[in-house]
Amino acid sequence: MKIVFNRMLIASLLCLPAVAMAADDPLTADTVQTHLNFVWTLIAGFLVFLMQAGFAMVETGLTRAKNAANIMMKNMMDFCIGSLAFWAIGFGLMFGASNGYFGTTDFFFSGATGDDAPWNFAFWMFQVVFCATAATIISGAVAERTKFSAYLIYSVFVSALIYPIFGSWAWGSLYHGGGWLENLGFIDFAGSTVVHSMGGWLALAGAIVVGPRIGKYTKDGKTRPIPGHNIPLAALGVFLLWFGWYGFNPGSTTTGDTSIAVIAVTTTLAAAAGSVAAMLFTLMKYGKSDVGMTLNGALAGLVGITAGCANVTPVSAVIIGAIAGVLVVLSVLFLDRLKIDDPVGAVSAHGVCGAWGTLAAGIFDQAGFSWGTVGVQVIGIASCFIWSFGTGLILFKCIDLTIGMRVTKEEEMTGLDFSEHGANSYPDFQTISVASDFNGLTGSKKAPTEAAVASKDKTVHI
Amino acid sequence: MKIVFNRMLIASLLCLPAVAMAADDPLTADTVQTHLNFVWTLIAGFLVFLMQAGFAMVETGLTRAKNAANIMMKNMMDFCIGSLAFWAIGFGLMFGASNGYFGTTDFFFSGATGDDAPWNFAFWMFQVVFCATAATIISGAVAERTKFSAYLIYSVFVSALIYPIFGSWAWGSLYHGGGWLENLGFIDFAGSTVVHSMGGWLALAGAIVVGPRIGKYTKDGKTRPIPGHNIPLAALGVFLLWFGWYGFNPGSTTTGDTSIAVIAVTTTLAAAAGSVAAMLFTLMKYGKSDVGMTLNGALAGLVGITAGCANVTPVSAVIIGAIAGVLVVLSVLFLDRLKIDDPVGAVSAHGVCGAWGTLAAGIFDQAGFSWGTVGVQVIGIASCFIWSFGTGLILFKCIDLTIGMRVTKEEEMTGLDFSEHGANSYPDFQTISVASDFNGLTGSKKAPTEAAVASKDKTVHI
Amino acid sequence: MKIVFNRMLIASLLCLPAVAMAADDPLTADTVQTHLNFVWTLIAGFLVFLMQAGFAMVETGLTRAKNAANIMMKNMMDFCIGSLAFWAIGFGLMFGASNGYFGTTDFFFSGATGDDAPWNFAFWMFQVVFCATAATIISGAVAERTKFSAYLIYSVFVSALIYPIFGSWAWGSLYHGGGWLENLGFIDFAGSTVVHSMGGWLALAGAIVVGPRIGKYTKDGKTRPIPGHNIPLAALGVFLLWFGWYGFNPGSTTTGDTSIAVIAVTTTLAAAAGSVAAMLFTLMKYGKSDVGMTLNGALAGLVGITAGCANVTPVSAVIIGAIAGVLVVLSVLFLDRLKIDDPVGAVSAHGVCGAWGTLAAGIFDQAGFSWGTVGVQVIGIASCFIWSFGTGLILFKCIDLTIGMRVTKEEEMTGLDFSEHGANSYPDFQTISVASDFNGLTGSKKAPTEAAVASKDKTVHI
Repeated sequence: MKIVFNRMLIASLLCLPAVAMAADDPLTADTVQTHLNFVWTLIAGFLVFLMQAGFAMVETGLTRAKNAANIMMKNMMDFCIGSLAFWAIGFGLMFGASNGYFGTTDFFFSGATGDDAPWNFAFWMFQVVFCATAATIISGAVAERTKFSAYLIYSVFVSALIYPIFGSWAWGSLYHGGGWLENLGFIDFAGSTVVHSMGGWLALAGAIVVGPRIGKYTKDGKTRPIPGHNIPLAALGVFLLWFGWYGFNPGSTTTGDTSIAVIAVTTTLAAAAGSVAAMLFTLMKYGKSDVGMTLNGALAGLVGITAGCANVTPVSAVIIGAIAGVLVVLSVLFLDRLKIDDPVGAVSAHGVCGAWGTLAAGIFDQAGFSWGTVGVQVIGIASCFIWSFGTGLILFKCIDLTIGMRVTKEEEMTGLDFSEHGANSYPDFQTISVASDFNGLTGSKKAPTEAAVASKDKTVHI
Repeated sequence: MKIVFNRMLIASLLCLPAVAMAADDPLTADTVQTHLNFVWTLIAGFLVFLMQAGFAMVETGLTRAKNAANIMMKNMMDFCIGSLAFWAIGFGLMFGASNGYFGTTDFFFSGATGDDAPWNFAFWMFQVVFCATAATIISGAVAERTKFSAYLIYSVFVSALIYPIFGSWAWGSLYHGGGWLENLGFIDFAGSTVVHSMGGWLALAGAIVVGPRIGKYTKDGKTRPIPGHNIPLAALGVFLLWFGWYGFNPGSTTTGDTSIAVIAVTTTLAAAAGSVAAMLFTLMKYGKSDVGMTLNGALAGLVGITAGCANVTPVSAVIIGAIAGVLVVLSVLFLDRLKIDDPVGAVSAHGVCGAWGTLAAGIFDQAGFSWGTVGVQVIGIASCFIWSFGTGLILFKCIDLTIGMRVTKEEEMTGLDFSEHGANSYPDFQTISVASDFNGLTGSKKAPTEAAVASKDKTVHI
Repeated sequence: MKIVFNRMLIASLLCLPAVAMAADDPLTADTVQTHLNFVWTLIAGFLVFLMQAGFAMVETGLTRAKNAANIMMKNMMDFCIGSLAFWAIGFGLMFGASNGYFGTTDFFFSGATGDDAPWNFAFWMFQVVFCATAATIISGAVAERTKFSAYLIYSVFVSALIYPIFGSWAWGSLYHGGGWLENLGFIDFAGSTVVHSMGGWLALAGAIVVGPRIGKYTKDGKTRPIPGHNIPLAALGVFLLWFGWYGFNPGSTTTGDTSIAVIAVTTTLAAAAGSVAAMLFTLMKYGKSDVGMTLNGALAGLVGITAGCANVTPVSAVIIGAIAGVLVVLSVLFLDRLKIDDPVGAVSAHGVCGAWGTLAAGIFDQAGFSWGTVGVQVIGIASCFIWSFGTGLILFKCIDLTIGMRVTKEEEMTGLDFSEHGANSYPDFQTISVASDFNGLTGSKKAPTEAAVASKDKTVHI
């Protein structure tokens, strides 16, 4: 304790009023538990923050080299712009005192006063990384052909309005608010619907409005695979996401107690089952196990268990995860049949498996099965789809009709790294020449190619 | 506080009995300490989980581009399959009520009932990532030529049977069990032997049965280096492993108290000393400091301190780490003389340095040197070698005689990415043409090469 | 041994060790708070450790492929050598009983005795990663042309002497010491000056002494961009650094209490504002948003908030971060006008923005503005510059005059991977042929090139 009091003295000299208090009163177990809740919640939030790196790696790994820097910019910016928007507007709409449909207080930390201030800050820190998760899910589905300016604009709207308003319906009472959906008894412990389906359905709207990448669907109705350029980075991203999910799910207790253990277990087993299921399913279907699908299977399992991680048994978690792992494969194939081009499978992993997980949290509720519970889950799933897909379509259409959602054909062929940022992600490497493909698709003989861009590049290669 | 209690209320509604208690009774310091133990143990487990990403990056970085996706699949699958196997069987064999040789209860969380349930879940979460570490160590030693199906099968046996049974001998009493080795007084705080030597000797058995990669050893008795394809990823992997080791070693207290600090210190100093020693040793030996060896030196130091991290002084940690750093280099050279091909040095870093670390935990025991202690350590080291190398040889031989351990020559030359998964990890990059090497080695003029595979690839490069 | 035995005994009692420990003494809330402080401080230190991986990825991503392995070696070694030096000498100079100018006790953990030992270990663990941060900042500024041996030598001096002595002036009283600068009331909560400016001004001295890379500045006074070879890795590095900063800033409380929340918030908002500001500023200036500058903008915001993270409001954090984001761009351009070649912008991000952040901690102090406070901050900023740039110039000049700071022209052209380590970071990839550039710059027709090196390489490419 000598040491702690040393630190407290120092901290109070450094203007930390919250600590000074403890110098007066003797510590109680309640106070230490509160401190532990802060430590746990914040560390969990930091893990969720790292999911931004995971999403960035998955998205760039599963797309082409010529768009890698653009994808890094998008993933950095959706967090940066999003966190400023969530600070200014989003948090208040989601967690401020609410009419049941949106909050109206707590903008710009206006509620962070007196004794409430520290927890307000801690809770915001945990929630802002959830908001960023929803926003960044969209990125993958519209990758490789969306204008950077359009991306920045819709990121603001998603983080400031679309995500928080739905969030207030399901989670508002976690702080000052309270929403109609949670009042029905909707179960979504860590956000299969609130975060993942939200992002997934917005991603679906975005992918529809922006249209498929050049060359993805041929005129004779076939789907052509456009392979990702860096599988190790994609896998690293999945590991980082899984790691971050241990903040996402167990951290959603925002309390450091014994209840976090089973949540870590259900999260682990569902992810494992999802990945194994996707691996075996593609092995049976194609004769070879598919790498991208197996990676997405792990994510599908994680998304699937997110709603029910605290109210289903480990056995149920395995079942939920395994079904999610098959579902994500089927959904990817189905979207391709609809000619909706989602380069990383975000709609399937987050939208579809988020809906499945939310339903499963009702079906496998260890408090006992009831049609009422399942019915409320369906209402939650449907209202999320209507809200996010609906507002998404409006948002993306408005952007498309004003500044435009999509880059030009030439820019898309050249790659967004060069056209949007004047960058080349891999200037020291020989990339595959793409002239013949390009000409074959567009009929132009003069179109810029990656190789041409590289050769005109005035930078030094020593 | 209101908010925190809100969360507790919610959690108790979601069937988390352990929390409900807090709503009734006033919190005691004992209860808060228990909560802190859960938070610490789980966060430590999450860090160890991230070591899976570290192993994946090290293995892919130190091997060839044509096998990168296969290595990602292996590293994802050994955790996923392994955690399901450890849930079903392994945990019970390792920590269930034991006859001294293996546990017979606690399969499928059957012991997770009543007040015991939360800690059962937390302890499983911490142990499953250790199991996965042992399993994934093998991956590197058999990389670039092992059938994916064989890999999946032996991963099940290692996680379900081989690792847990030995584990019960040394660590069973940490839960319901108790084993003959710990009854002798065997010291292996965090698993130099239980995890690392276990994985290392299994890796040795695997490398012997599967045989060296084509071209590694020439007919005139020379060893040819097969350089890793991505040094930055390998280094990233080592940093991630080191980071995860702070969960591995200090987390093995499974108690959040003051004893964790010195463990973090000994872990840090041993790793640093190991890396510096390997760097200086290769500098003196070759005139240039070797990158792969220096990276392996850090791992060697970490493996070496794992057994004794809690019972040796910081000075001893530096000595233990430095010796491990030299030992790993000598061991790699020795294995090459035996023509045992271990692409990433897993046998040396984990097997040999794990044995060294276990011995060192006896020699440098700060409770005082005693031949008795050292003798028990030797018994533990030897019994681990006999068990893991023995069962490993049987397991790999059985697989080899049935479905076969090794891919065909053509598949190995083409790369396992394509032959096992129909994948190409880096489709946007020009890889080195390997036709001449290939033809020189096999005499065939028509063998498929990476370049040929790429040109036949029907995917779109735009 | 005692610890191990305790653990086993404890664990056998139904696996709730802390509760069992209460058999001797009943736990008090004070004791549990102490335990929580250990857990929090150590986990924060682990996060800061991961910043080593972040720095390594940023540095290699923003430089050329031919030096990637050398950069990994440097980043591994500055931590490894640095932590041994900080253990032996640095910690005692910084935190030992002090005359106001440097400490004179606590070398080699000599103060870690009795009840003080656990916190001594924990505090060292937290401080050693800060020391390593200061040391590794230099690496980026002198990248791609500095001898590995010179790098090793100055790393020892920085970690053992230069960093700790200044540190004792500002932070000594956090342990046994106490320094003249903190006695004036200098505010630098987590090290904008103590760590980042320190590293940045040392980097400036290093970059001046070693001189610009070949080809960076042409004879007619122009600056030629030398693009980084792997933008996704650079972005990953920034995400890892940001993640680690949540240990760096909130962890600097070394107390797990409610004060950590606002620090996490100010850290987040400043980083976000810095990145957005740099992105918008380059967009306005060049018509395209620059990737490298946007990434550096996030780091600039993080460096900028580090001093004041605990004593400024969230609104101030946004302002501080945004200004840092613009400042880093202007500083990079200014250094290029001075022909000081800093490949990754380390001097600008850490030196300049560290100074800005330290000033801002005074200006935006929420205790109220006072010229006295600002004056002390200026004294701290100036004394850091004088000490670190001064000792840096002397150190690097001494090294240059003895063993030499810089590799030969041929080695620089070939790349330090091969010349210093006999390595090739990407042997499976076709890298851009650089013969023409090389010849144009040096007039030699026979100089070794990467391609030539590769073709002479006797390793196997199968």
